[in-house]
Amino acid sequence: MKRSSGKLGLPPGSVVFTGVQYAETPTFRLIDYTPQSVTIKRLQKVDDAFPFKRKKSVTWLDIAGLHQTDVIEKIGNYFGLHPLTQEDIASTGKRADFESFDKYLFIVVKILSYNDNTNEVVADHVSFVVGNNFVLSFQERDGDLLNGIRERIRTGKGRVRRMGADFLAYVLLDNIIDRYFGVLEKIGDRIVSIEEDLNDDPQQSTLNNIHKLKRELIYLRRTIWPLRDMVNRMIKSDSRIWKKQTKVYLNDLYDHAIQAMDTAESFRDMSANMLDIYLSMMSHRMNEIMKVLTIFSSIFIPLTFVTGVYGMNFDFMPELAWKYGYLFIWGIFLSIAGGMLYYFKRKDWL
Amino acid sequence: MKRSSGKLGLPPGSVVFTGVQYAETPTFRLIDYTPQSVTIKRLQKVDDAFPFKRKKSVTWLDIAGLHQTDVIEKIGNYFGLHPLTQEDIASTGKRADFESFDKYLFIVVKILSYNDNTNEVVADHVSFVVGNNFVLSFQERDGDLLNGIRERIRTGKGRVRRMGADFLAYVLLDNIIDRYFGVLEKIGDRIVSIEEDLNDDPQQSTLNNIHKLKRELIYLRRTIWPLRDMVNRMIKSDSRIWKKQTKVYLNDLYDHAIQAMDTAESFRDMSANMLDIYLSMMSHRMNEIMKVLTIFSSIFIPLTFVTGVYGMNFDFMPELAWKYGYLFIWGIFLSIAGGMLYYFKRKDWL
Amino acid sequence: MKRSSGKLGLPPGSVVFTGVQYAETPTFRLIDYTPQSVTIKRLQKVDDAFPFKRKKSVTWLDIAGLHQTDVIEKIGNYFGLHPLTQEDIASTGKRADFESFDKYLFIVVKILSYNDNTNEVVADHVSFVVGNNFVLSFQERDGDLLNGIRERIRTGKGRVRRMGADFLAYVLLDNIIDRYFGVLEKIGDRIVSIEEDLNDDPQQSTLNNIHKLKRELIYLRRTIWPLRDMVNRMIKSDSRIWKKQTKVYLNDLYDHAIQAMDTAESFRDMSANMLDIYLSMMSHRMNEIMKVLTIFSSIFIPLTFVTGVYGMNFDFMPELAWKYGYLFIWGIFLSIAGGMLYYFKRKDWL
Amino acid sequence: MKRSSGKLGLPPGSVVFTGVQYAETPTFRLIDYTPQSVTIKRLQKVDDAFPFKRKKSVTWLDIAGLHQTDVIEKIGNYFGLHPLTQEDIASTGKRADFESFDKYLFIVVKILSYNDNTNEVVADHVSFVVGNNFVLSFQERDGDLLNGIRERIRTGKGRVRRMGADFLAYVLLDNIIDRYFGVLEKIGDRIVSIEEDLNDDPQQSTLNNIHKLKRELIYLRRTIWPLRDMVNRMIKSDSRIWKKQTKVYLNDLYDHAIQAMDTAESFRDMSANMLDIYLSMMSHRMNEIMKVLTIFSSIFIPLTFVTGVYGMNFDFMPELAWKYGYLFIWGIFLSIAGGMLYYFKRKDWL
Amino acid sequence: MKRSSGKLGLPPGSVVFTGVQYAETPTFRLIDYTPQSVTIKRLQKVDDAFPFKRKKSVTWLDIAGLHQTDVIEKIGNYFGLHPLTQEDIASTGKRADFESFDKYLFIVVKILSYNDNTNEVVADHVSFVVGNNFVLSFQERDGDLLNGIRERIRTGKGRVRRMGADFLAYVLLDNIIDRYFGVLEKIGDRIVSIEEDLNDDPQQSTLNNIHKLKRELIYLRRTIWPLRDMVNRMIKSDSRIWKKQTKVYLNDLYDHAIQAMDTAESFRDMSANMLDIYLSMMSHRMNEIMKVLTIFSSIFIPLTFVTGVYGMNFDFMPELAWKYGYLFIWGIFLSIAGGMLYYFKRKDWL
Repeated sequence: MKRSSGKLGLPPGSVVFTGVQYAETPTFRLIDYTPQSVTIKRLQKVDDAFPFKRKKSVTWLDIAGLHQTDVIEKIGNYFGLHPLTQEDIASTGKRADFESFDKYLFIVVKILSYNDNTNEVVADHVSFVVGNNFVLSFQERDGDLLNGIRERIRTGKGRVRRMGADFLAYVLLDNIIDRYFGVLEKIGDRIVSIEEDLNDDPQQSTLNNIHKLKRELIYLRRTIWPLRDMVNRMIKSDSRIWKKQTKVYLNDLYDHAIQAMDTAESFRDMSANMLDIYLSMMSHRMNEIMKVLTIFSSIFIPLTFVTGVYGMNFDFMPELAWKYGYLFIWGIFLSIAGGMLYYFKRKDWL
Repeated sequence: MKRSSGKLGLPPGSVVFTGVQYAETPTFRLIDYTPQSVTIKRLQKVDDAFPFKRKKSVTWLDIAGLHQTDVIEKIGNYFGLHPLTQEDIASTGKRADFESFDKYLFIVVKILSYNDNTNEVVADHVSFVVGNNFVLSFQERDGDLLNGIRERIRTGKGRVRRMGADFLAYVLLDNIIDRYFGVLEKIGDRIVSIEEDLNDDPQQSTLNNIHKLKRELIYLRRTIWPLRDMVNRMIKSDSRIWKKQTKVYLNDLYDHAIQAMDTAESFRDMSANMLDIYLSMMSHRMNEIMKVLTIFSSIFIPLTFVTGVYGMNFDFMPELAWKYGYLFIWGIFLSIAGGMLYYFKRKDWL
Repeated sequence: MKRSSGKLGLPPGSVVFTGVQYAETPTFRLIDYTPQSVTIKRLQKVDDAFPFKRKKSVTWLDIAGLHQTDVIEKIGNYFGLHPLTQEDIASTGKRADFESFDKYLFIVVKILSYNDNTNEVVADHVSFVVGNNFVLSFQERDGDLLNGIRERIRTGKGRVRRMGADFLAYVLLDNIIDRYFGVLEKIGDRIVSIEEDLNDDPQQSTLNNIHKLKRELIYLRRTIWPLRDMVNRMIKSDSRIWKKQTKVYLNDLYDHAIQAMDTAESFRDMSANMLDIYLSMMSHRMNEIMKVLTIFSSIFIPLTFVTGVYGMNFDFMPELAWKYGYLFIWGIFLSIAGGMLYYFKRKDWL
Repeated sequence: MKRSSGKLGLPPGSVVFTGVQYAETPTFRLIDYTPQSVTIKRLQKVDDAFPFKRKKSVTWLDIAGLHQTDVIEKIGNYFGLHPLTQEDIASTGKRADFESFDKYLFIVVKILSYNDNTNEVVADHVSFVVGNNFVLSFQERDGDLLNGIRERIRTGKGRVRRMGADFLAYVLLDNIIDRYFGVLEKIGDRIVSIEEDLNDDPQQSTLNNIHKLKRELIYLRRTIWPLRDMVNRMIKSDSRIWKKQTKVYLNDLYDHAIQAMDTAESFRDMSANMLDIYLSMMSHRMNEIMKVLTIFSSIFIPLTFVTGVYGMNFDFMPELAWKYGYLFIWGIFLSIAGGMLYYFKRKDWL
Repeated sequence: MKRSSGKLGLPPGSVVFTGVQYAETPTFRLIDYTPQSVTIKRLQKVDDAFPFKRKKSVTWLDIAGLHQTDVIEKIGNYFGLHPLTQEDIASTGKRADFESFDKYLFIVVKILSYNDNTNEVVADHVSFVVGNNFVLSFQERDGDLLNGIRERIRTGKGRVRRMGADFLAYVLLDNIIDRYFGVLEKIGDRIVSIEEDLNDDPQQSTLNNIHKLKRELIYLRRTIWPLRDMVNRMIKSDSRIWKKQTKVYLNDLYDHAIQAMDTAESFRDMSANMLDIYLSMMSHRMNEIMKVLTIFSSIFIPLTFVTGVYGMNFDFMPELAWKYGYLFIWGIFLSIAGGMLYYFKRKDWL
């Protein structure tokens, strides 16, 4: 849970950054394209982007770094964003959401990535503002996520150049949800590896891995669940910004969101199942250990008692003087041991 | 659960206070404002507030202390509140709720606060009556909760002065729900601390902490769940008291309610997970303890039996007279012990 | 579950009593009132009530004792009740329900009471037939439940005298649901007492109490759940018998039903939590017991082996003749014991 | 689960019997009635029933035995049944269902009966085809189920003779659902008996009974759940075959279906609760057993060590020669034993 | 989970095969039929199928093998398939789905088969494109699945020849869902066999079988659940491609999907129940083992202590010299043992 208590008591619409600051200053990347031409720029200051708003070409302004909230407010005011939208852009604790305003659509989504070193899932906060001919994207850090799409626009591959700002927004979302499957596959690999451990020789570390996995899945599930509702509301939205030919793509997006959710749910079932396996194995092992102890104790404790009897120093103990007394006592030992073994055999303990 | 049995058998609409009395007499604070001017007063008796009702300016009357039910009835009758509304203002057991009457809206909500000493969540009962140009707030005690908003109105910060009574109600609710996140963060801290204990060295006290947390979460969940339905009904309500520009803020409130609920649910999942960890650790430990016991017993019990054999006092025991008998017996000791150790090694117990 | 198999194979609409007979003959109490006047009578036979049906005043006929099914049929036929309604009046196994007929409304509800001696919740079957100007109430026994309301009508307190038969039905239902909270509080007390036992020193009896509580809650839940649906259908009903000003009271009733359900659900969560506490405490105790056993065994079993060695009667055992042999052996004892203690210390068992 | 793999690869609409054949040939019973007259016949061959179809009187043809699928096809073709209806009549694996066709209604339902010898619930497949003036009933075997209704029609008791084919269908369904309560009561008796066992002295057999009960309830639940949806769709259906006065009876049927479902759910909760009781009792017992073992071992193992010490044969052991050495050693024995007992007392183990 | 990460970063509509390649080249089978005539061909290249598109007869083109994505693109472009449809045909990770386009319907479904050797359920990806007079089917491998239907068309059996392309699609789906029941029966057999093991003598292998079953059911459930939604959307679809007389068949399909889901859910309940049985049996066994150990230890440890006492070498031990000392000590042995046995008898441990 990201800290949001810093906002306590502030009036609604206050723009407060609640995430992690990755770089000193935000970076601004701008792409402006028509089917025929494309302009790519890295801007020094955000004001340089404003003239593009009035152009008919599609403009995509990507802001990486949200800690300078005055930048958000400046863009927000220029593009006519509602104060609550400005607040939500900086509130990294907000879940995936879609809101339709008169002049723009506002989309919040999480970018998932998997840290191979710590085996942890990391979620970054991204929000998109989609207007008639512009897309604003706000990211926590300047990752490589959106570079591929920028390249695709530059070279003119795919449909994206021929379609409008709404299709660009779709392409960005599609790209982000595709990454969810990458993360889910990593987790799927961990499940396979834990299952192998359970088959071979489960250890305390296996248990730790299961629990870590379960925690990760609680987190993942909480991130993925709102997606479905978000995409559904995007499809149902009657905003004129979504063009008719983009809607069929949104259906596909919905399908992907469902599939991601579905996979996460199956993983939850599997991890619960693995914990059950571990616990029932522990219970089985305990039984094995107890059997060994009981067999040993039950055989030798009576025998030791018998040796104790004939180790007593009573003056009058007739058996001690028997000629075959020692032999006789070994006969007793063997028959006690044999009897016990037979008893355990019958009880199916051996 | 607050006691409500005191009301048993009374006719519906009976105003009976079921909470805790914090102060001897209720306090009455009144703010009356327009975009241009503001009046702040602490009233001696509630009747002093009545003339403000007819003014066009927005009037906010805050009553702290609900035990003098005649005060509630007096206000209720003056402002035309339905008998059931009067009853609900004093019924501190009532959950969060929204009801729309002809002339006013009635909102019940809980203020959550976290007691750092007892580590307990405390819920206070608050209700709002929102009319065209007035807001009545009824609290159990005169906390610092609403002071910040009073100050904001006084200094004219934020949008609140420029908008109507419905926006004031929204600002109050927003403030209250923001506090939920503060409480959730405190509980999040406790979860992190319990997880550290589980990693280091879980004790009986860790278990107690988990159970206390689970209890707290049952309570919290029960308080947070109705919020969502309440805000949803506020949004769907077609009462003319909600102005159009306030509705977008209610959507934001709904989003916050969902997020609080969502966080509480994740905490529940996590606490269940932590209990699982504790129990599987206990089970693992038990296995370890049993292994130690079994290894010791299984090695030494047979050895002790052998010493018992040669401690017997039979007259005729040939081994006793052997020259290397003692050495031979040590050989037997070592081979039994070695055999057992090898057996346990192969069973992976060592 | 009340026995309903007695009805097997009978045609639908057969009036068969499936409950417990409390008194030999049913009692009939009649109240007839207008805002100005009130008549209260205890009738000898049910026919005496029939003339009141044609009056414009509100008539409430209360029948206690359902075992004389011919009485139900006689009333049913006079007041024009559908055969299925007559059947349901006597079927004490039926859950809370609301049905709207052309000329009357039919309401089935359970009266809950808590038996302090057996600590059990008892549910009695009550049904109401609400017409334009009459209410028929059918109870299994002549309890004190409805006396308070009778008294209220007689003295003219509250709104009930000024309003119609539908409001009287609401008052009766409100009274019945209020009692649910009384029962829930008793159960809440039991939960608190069990929690104290768990904190102090949980016994087998604590476990029994938890399980008894859980059973009681299954029963309670099953009784409370249908209430919500019943009241909801009452609110949605478009029967002309419900007057507009009564509807707002039904909303309040709905709210109470939800709150009762909600409390029962929280109790379920709490009782599940308490069972978890008990079981994890047992698991913890078992660990403690095993530790003691293992520590004792692991220290003394090797020592006993050593004493056994020097208790053997071999002719040639050099140590026995050593001058400081006995002292030396105590050294061995102490170092074994010390070593084991150090080992357990390091394992954190001490 | 009844085998349905025999149908694999056949075209849709293939009539394949998947149940158990009880008799060699099907029996055909026909009743034809008006309010005034009634004809009851046992037919030799199914064709004899066909002339009745054109009559205005209500005709009920009951076919017991579904293995001769050509009979089903012959009836089906004569009465104009859709191929899928014909298929479903013979598919005994199909769950309770309602389908509305142009000329008839098709109802599938299970008859539950309780085998007192094996303590098992048996479900038979029944389907009804309800036309304007005829009812066809298809049963797996010629049970006594429908005889009571036949008798009721013959003697003219109840409403059934005065009403149409749709009411006859309702009476048949009502009768079948009434039997569900008989079965549920039998299972309720088993629950009571298991609870008594748990209170007295739970055995392995008690556990087996709980598990058998749980299995039975899984099966029962699966049979009862679809009922609710089926009756609901019957009520919502706009087919002209349901007359208005029958609809109120269908509401009653719905109520019974809900009640059966509700009871089965409570039984599930109770059986889960009973398993919890059993397991926590086992856990408690294990603790008791371990305590006894630990107390015995912890007292006697140190004592035995002491006896071992003075059983050693060292040449120089001063205590052995003390005058009161033996007395002194008993003092040590008693103080060790006393100390241990005191320790266990303080630990609350005694 | 099938790997879909290969698609990461590609633009939407990219046709990427994510499944297993079974054969080197795809096979193309074409059937073209009218009620009167039928043509069956195995095509060398897919282009040979294109002329059939313009014919009025129903054409079914079956493509087995999806790894040559250029083939999919060629067909897709010729038949006017949307890029996303082309992508989904090759994405074997996609769940069952139905989408309605202007000119065609797109159906994705899984073919389940049961591998008797590995006891595993295998799911193959199949998709259908249904146009006004053609059906395209895309399978991962050239199985025997669709041969039966081809044969049925050739010989003109069943209704399929007389009806259109939509009915052919229904027949294909019906055939596929029928196979689900075959797989469910195999799993049902495994459940019966595990239950027998649990009754006879549960082993570690029984536990493994339960866990394997549970995993399989997680997978199965995930495959079956989307079916219901898919068929439901097919029924609700207002596409003109579904003819009215086919809709009743789709209802039947829905019923089958529900039944498959229902059976899978019951299996889940049963497998959870079986795990409970196993664990409670383990718990019971552990109790038995502990009892044996405790009884043996508690009887013999005190006896051994007594023998130890009289094995001590104190100079002055009066009992040793008693004439009947040895006899007396046996009396002590027997009374201790008898006392313990009586104690355990009373505790019901014997």
